[in-house]
Amino acid sequence: MAEHKYVYMFTETDETMKNLVGGKGANLGQMTKLGLPIPQGFTVTTEACTYYYKNNQKLSDDIMKQIQSSLEKLEDITGKKFGDPKNPLLVSVRSGARVSMPGMMDTILNLGLNEEVVAGLAEATGNPSFAYDSYRRFIQMYSDVVMGLAKSRFEEIIDEMKKERNIEYDTEFTTEDLKEMITNFKAFYKKELNSEFPFEPKEQLIGAINAVFESWENPRANYYRKMHNIPSDWGTAVNVQSMVYGNMGNTSGTGVAFTRNPATGEKKIYGEYLINAQGEDVVAGVRTPQQISALENEMPEIYQEFMSLANKLENHFRDMQDIEFTIENGKLYLLQTRSGKRTAQAALRIAVELVEEGMLSKERALLLVQPEQLDDLLHPQFDVAALKKAQPIGAGLPASPGAACGQVAFNVEQVVKMRKEGKQVVLVRLETSPEDIEGMHVSEGFLTARGGMTSHAAVVARGMGKCCVSGVKEMEISEEKGYFKLGGKTLNLGDWISLDGTTGNVYAEQIPTVPATISGDFETFMSWCDEFRRLKIRTNADTPKDAKQAREFGAEGIGLCRTEHMFFDSTRIKAMREMILADNTEQRTAALEKLLPMQRGDFEALFEAMGNFPVTVRYLDPPLHEFLPTAPEAIKELAEEMGVSVEKLNTKIAELHETNPMMGHRGCRLAVSYPELAEMQTKAVIEAYINVKKRNPEYTAVPEIMIPLIGDEKELKYVKEVVVNTADKILKESNMNVDYHVGTMIEIPRAAVRADHIAKEADFFSFGTNDLTQMTFGFSRDDAGKFLSDYYSKRVFESDPFARIDQNGVGVLVEMAVEKGRSVKSNLKLGVCGEHGGEPSSIEFFNRIGLDYVSCSPYRVPIARLAAAQAVVKAKK
Amino acid sequence: MAEHKYVYMFTETDETMKNLVGGKGANLGQMTKLGLPIPQGFTVTTEACTYYYKNNQKLSDDIMKQIQSSLEKLEDITGKKFGDPKNPLLVSVRSGARVSMPGMMDTILNLGLNEEVVAGLAEATGNPSFAYDSYRRFIQMYSDVVMGLAKSRFEEIIDEMKKERNIEYDTEFTTEDLKEMITNFKAFYKKELNSEFPFEPKEQLIGAINAVFESWENPRANYYRKMHNIPSDWGTAVNVQSMVYGNMGNTSGTGVAFTRNPATGEKKIYGEYLINAQGEDVVAGVRTPQQISALENEMPEIYQEFMSLANKLENHFRDMQDIEFTIENGKLYLLQTRSGKRTAQAALRIAVELVEEGMLSKERALLLVQPEQLDDLLHPQFDVAALKKAQPIGAGLPASPGAACGQVAFNVEQVVKMRKEGKQVVLVRLETSPEDIEGMHVSEGFLTARGGMTSHAAVVARGMGKCCVSGVKEMEISEEKGYFKLGGKTLNLGDWISLDGTTGNVYAEQIPTVPATISGDFETFMSWCDEFRRLKIRTNADTPKDAKQAREFGAEGIGLCRTEHMFFDSTRIKAMREMILADNTEQRTAALEKLLPMQRGDFEALFEAMGNFPVTVRYLDPPLHEFLPTAPEAIKELAEEMGVSVEKLNTKIAELHETNPMMGHRGCRLAVSYPELAEMQTKAVIEAYINVKKRNPEYTAVPEIMIPLIGDEKELKYVKEVVVNTADKILKESNMNVDYHVGTMIEIPRAAVRADHIAKEADFFSFGTNDLTQMTFGFSRDDAGKFLSDYYSKRVFESDPFARIDQNGVGVLVEMAVEKGRSVKSNLKLGVCGEHGGEPSSIEFFNRIGLDYVSCSPYRVPIARLAAAQAVVKAKK
Repeated sequence: MAEHKYVYMFTETDETMKNLVGGKGANLGQMTKLGLPIPQGFTVTTEACTYYYKNNQKLSDDIMKQIQSSLEKLEDITGKKFGDPKNPLLVSVRSGARVSMPGMMDTILNLGLNEEVVAGLAEATGNPSFAYDSYRRFIQMYSDVVMGLAKSRFEEIIDEMKKERNIEYDTEFTTEDLKEMITNFKAFYKKELNSEFPFEPKEQLIGAINAVFESWENPRANYYRKMHNIPSDWGTAVNVQSMVYGNMGNTSGTGVAFTRNPATGEKKIYGEYLINAQGEDVVAGVRTPQQISALENEMPEIYQEFMSLANKLENHFRDMQDIEFTIENGKLYLLQTRSGKRTAQAALRIAVELVEEGMLSKERALLLVQPEQLDDLLHPQFDVAALKKAQPIGAGLPASPGAACGQVAFNVEQVVKMRKEGKQVVLVRLETSPEDIEGMHVSEGFLTARGGMTSHAAVVARGMGKCCVSGVKEMEISEEKGYFKLGGKTLNLGDWISLDGTTGNVYAEQIPTVPATISGDFETFMSWCDEFRRLKIRTNADTPKDAKQAREFGAEGIGLCRTEHMFFDSTRIKAMREMILADNTEQRTAALEKLLPMQRGDFEALFEAMGNFPVTVRYLDPPLHEFLPTAPEAIKELAEEMGVSVEKLNTKIAELHETNPMMGHRGCRLAVSYPELAEMQTKAVIEAYINVKKRNPEYTAVPEIMIPLIGDEKELKYVKEVVVNTADKILKESNMNVDYHVGTMIEIPRAAVRADHIAKEADFFSFGTNDLTQMTFGFSRDDAGKFLSDYYSKRVFESDPFARIDQNGVGVLVEMAVEKGRSVKSNLKLGVCGEHGGEPSSIEFFNRIGLDYVSCSPYRVPIARLAAAQAVVKAKK
Repeated sequence: MAEHKYVYMFTETDETMKNLVGGKGANLGQMTKLGLPIPQGFTVTTEACTYYYKNNQKLSDDIMKQIQSSLEKLEDITGKKFGDPKNPLLVSVRSGARVSMPGMMDTILNLGLNEEVVAGLAEATGNPSFAYDSYRRFIQMYSDVVMGLAKSRFEEIIDEMKKERNIEYDTEFTTEDLKEMITNFKAFYKKELNSEFPFEPKEQLIGAINAVFESWENPRANYYRKMHNIPSDWGTAVNVQSMVYGNMGNTSGTGVAFTRNPATGEKKIYGEYLINAQGEDVVAGVRTPQQISALENEMPEIYQEFMSLANKLENHFRDMQDIEFTIENGKLYLLQTRSGKRTAQAALRIAVELVEEGMLSKERALLLVQPEQLDDLLHPQFDVAALKKAQPIGAGLPASPGAACGQVAFNVEQVVKMRKEGKQVVLVRLETSPEDIEGMHVSEGFLTARGGMTSHAAVVARGMGKCCVSGVKEMEISEEKGYFKLGGKTLNLGDWISLDGTTGNVYAEQIPTVPATISGDFETFMSWCDEFRRLKIRTNADTPKDAKQAREFGAEGIGLCRTEHMFFDSTRIKAMREMILADNTEQRTAALEKLLPMQRGDFEALFEAMGNFPVTVRYLDPPLHEFLPTAPEAIKELAEEMGVSVEKLNTKIAELHETNPMMGHRGCRLAVSYPELAEMQTKAVIEAYINVKKRNPEYTAVPEIMIPLIGDEKELKYVKEVVVNTADKILKESNMNVDYHVGTMIEIPRAAVRADHIAKEADFFSFGTNDLTQMTFGFSRDDAGKFLSDYYSKRVFESDPFARIDQNGVGVLVEMAVEKGRSVKSNLKLGVCGEHGGEPSSIEFFNRIGLDYVSCSPYRVPIARLAAAQAVVKAKK
């Protein structure tokens, strides 16, 4: 039997092989195919990674053999030999998963060096300071990545040596300094790890590959995967690439560049480079690099060549590219290319312009924007007037646009703590690192003293759609003591600041914000979404304000109006409580009579706010005890207000107490017990509808009454009868000949099972996937957080079923209900109003199984419009 | 289009038509076909009843027409005319549902009488006192049943007249007395209802038929149906039968008889009759009737004829018959026959003897005993020694066997109240009536001063399997004042008494009881069950005592051992709490180490108690907060005991608090968070197993480890790995080469949906239908009682899904899991361990869908054995 192929040369791969060799590997193969100047190498596949974990975290002999033979091929290609002091082959070892996870996994450069090889390299290149600089870097990286000896421990040694020699930059060290540094490093290594730094290059290589595979499971990578819903069983590939050197002196350098501006989308090359440096120096933001435009003067030929290659890559991949390059002694190499991360604003502009340039069809352009990204554009912007009046205390690079306003924190722990207290936080750091990712995720924005536009903070901010101002050089910061100074002001932990990511300005105050609007490229792009999508997008809204906002964002109706929210209003809760405390139907009806005009008014306003779009009114859903107080003081107060004894009130509260309120007396069960409730709500809906219709004769929407928590057709039949009797009586009395619909939520597992029977009684189904998820899993949403964290950390679950619909379980029930419902009523209207209705992967699922609409919160409407359009495009593929 | 037939003459029906014409109607048709002396008549079908309710509780014109034409046919058959004073046809109007519901619905006799007809009847029969007695009875019954004017109000008039005339019995009234009584009755009727008593016989008939249909929905009937799971949409038929008279003087009479003894099953005619009476007098127990044997002397020819007819009926129906008969002027008529209600003891003896007599196959005999009835025989009997020492204070008729011991109550309200206080109650009444049924259901037994072996109390007691002593003539009772006197003692409300239903003795003391055993006919019958059933029957048991009891009742293994019950023991809960309060894994493991030997001991005892039958051990299931106190005092005490601060304890309790604990951190979720828990429990199971095996080398059972609350295959995989690693290590260390199984409960809706994936990891599935019902319906069992009562009263639900499996919803998921599970593992063992595992209709379902076993509480094991056998027999039909 032929052995399974676990290692591929770059010459054997291309862009279609991402799943097997990872994004980086596939693109390196493709670039090789395109004849671009790529340092050659080979890729150990993602399958090898999966196998590594199955094989008790060990590389199998078979894989080791394949690595060895690929290494030999690479020696042939490069004409160098691994471990040969006279003509040494050195390699970089880098991770590369199916999708790019920048900075999440480990990289090792300059691998293959030892005392003998470094000496040979110094001689061969005639550049000993380069050779020894490379070696000391290798020791640092290898010790950190493979052996877990933190890089910062070595930096301490470097800092000490700098102090001794009174120099500022690494580049000022002499070769002798570097040799001493290496001796110090190795001594430190031995002291800490009780063994010699590995001499044998092949041992180094296997150690490095192991380390990359191990890094797939490091906490940062896990967190990133969870955030981006990347399955852990995908694994990562490892790219072993022959080294080229940006640190060989002043005709060498390294940089990264985007073919368009990743912050704004402007069609203009955008990037940074450092002379005499290796890639890590640029990304880590240790030295502030130069703009790519400066290269035109410094190395005009290289610049022209780079521009031409960049153009070629963008034309080939038909998307903005993020390119790493190295100049080695005046020769340009490309180290990798990938689709660049970008802000939402940039994503929209790039998508629209690529279509205008004739490079992409609208359909393909729709896939260039992540639906979730749009969220960044929907959140409030600084109020222009207020911003004008505000005085910046300083400015940095506008690394990621948007408005951030929050209280200052200096590390992840502070951020997390303050967020728990409900505060908005801005993270202020000297520079950020991958370890900060969790805190960055919940911050409003980031401010850093060091780093350029492609520094860690900047890249992450753009990926997350957060605002970032980086490289504020004049800032003085002490993270330990918890303060920073800028523009003559000192800001402490908890002080308010505002960041303008579009200008780079920093303000020592809270600047008010205003709602977002959809215009320009955003508007163009959204109109394309509407051309392609099949699903209607509705919104969940209980107030005219929300309804109006949602319409501005493109909502085509209300899919869920939660009537109970209206009763919590302080002017109404009294009547609600009277209803609950009623001793009999008469008292209850009397209290409901008081609520009727308020509720009717609510509906009139909602109907008018939605114009001719439909409004789905869900009848009272929560258990009644939610409307009563629990604190003794509040109970006493309420008793006085209601004129009942504290005892009576306590008795009622005790009566209403439930062990598992989620599965208690709520939803349609309330209407079965107290039909007068459904009667009042029906009066309010129908009378409001009549009033609106009288005022606007051209009003044509059909009101939709939705009965929650149905588990059996008989429940629906019972409540529907109350609704229909009440509604028809009013309509007859008003001589109105209009239509209304009565439907149900499908949110109880049994309702899915009985959907064919329930459909006979229903004009529409709306899937309440929040409750359906709770009951299908048996997870109380209020309690599951506690144990789900164990589930994630033990990899039992990888994603939150309350965030993304669980297609294998809950989704099966939804699909069952769709099929059963339509089997008896082919025109049954089907929608979803759980929170999944605004989540892209869930929307793709709902599109596939044939729902008619999704309903989501107003701020998710544009996201849903895009996701619904992408669902159609993806389904065609 | 031919009109739908809603009315059938008795000559048109037979025993196969029960669903259409009801049990009574079908048997009257069959008896007509057999040529027996039946007063002829016709039946208005159950379909007419269903239609009546659809048609806003009105008889349609069509049905009225069919009734009229059937009445004309009946006039032709009898040669009499309805409403004709010269030759009047009188009829009885009686309900008759598919299954017999004795006393639950209404009956009207002597219908067709008015002032003119009664005079004609008096003349035609030459028996005016009979005629007027019949008329006054009719007025009473009609007023009560049709107009809702309580019969007792008329009894007051009768009592007054008796007092005036100083007479004791009805039969002593003269014709003039009866005429005066009728005048009084009518005046009273007019005064109360503001209208004349209806004169027109046809109006009377329609009123009566309406009333019978209405009675289908009276509270007694609803209660009875709910108790016996009879669907309300079956409806009742109405039988209109020409009257024959037992009240025509001393050559007339009426009675009821059973072809075998309904209390013991003895093959001997058993019944009672009253001379010069109508049927209601016997059933109501107003006069104490004579034994049927006395008829042999009084009317030997009639007696011979009756014996021969009774024999013929039993041979035809191949079951013990309950026959109503009337002797009219020396001529015998049969009014109805039906399979007689009987005690469990009688049911077994009759079934066994019918097989021995060659009248029935074993298969058919299995259907003659209701599984639930066996319950009566499994409950404790009086301790023989204690009974010998006890001194009866009196005795009555042994109307229904068994032992009842409880505190005296005199009406339903008292019974219900005392039951709520957790007391055992014996209901003591002058005589019982259908209104008492709810109180009778929750009493231990009944003691009545009046009434014979076929009185209401006796019939109901035998039907319910309760003990009853009736007709204790020397008893003096005041229900209002709440005492009774017997044998010189006065017993008050709440005093203890004991009743021996087998001897009829009454004791003014508490007599201790002993557990039941299976022997004699019971044993024979159960062995037949075992011959036929396919399902294995296991038991739910946590203690060796329960396990032993269950084995004696025939259990073939433990299907569910709830390990948490073992931790609530006062000697163990401390270690359990230490485990819960542990701050880290080390502390937790230390506490678990203390629990290990106890738990291992539990399992050794259980394994040994079950011999070679399998034992399924379910791992810890409830949320941990259930093991901690909630009252501040108890918390303080515990804090001291555990040596922790009250604050810390309160913090922990608050941390563990859950909004919906049913769907919280419990079941396998505990083992995912704390794998050391599953490790300890695995050690306990496997070490116990090894110890038992070492002691008994012939021990061959395979221990079954059951992981609860699985919703996804990855959960099971995670916990199973802990189990297998632990178990295999122990087995290896002990050099034991034995097998063990790891399976899961299917109790989360998602587990049913994912059953094909879960089955790959599981050796068996056990359906936890309690939780599955909770989550499929979204009903918290702890809370649903409150609103389910509204569901029953509004007919949204008819049966309790926690008692009988919901085949249309929960059952669909169970079936789905069976199919999916077996699709990937054809030998997957499938069982059920929810409470439905001991409920006959559910067992029939589980048999049908192919489960391997059911598991139920020890006392339901014999019931399950019979239900499983019946399921096979019914499936063959």
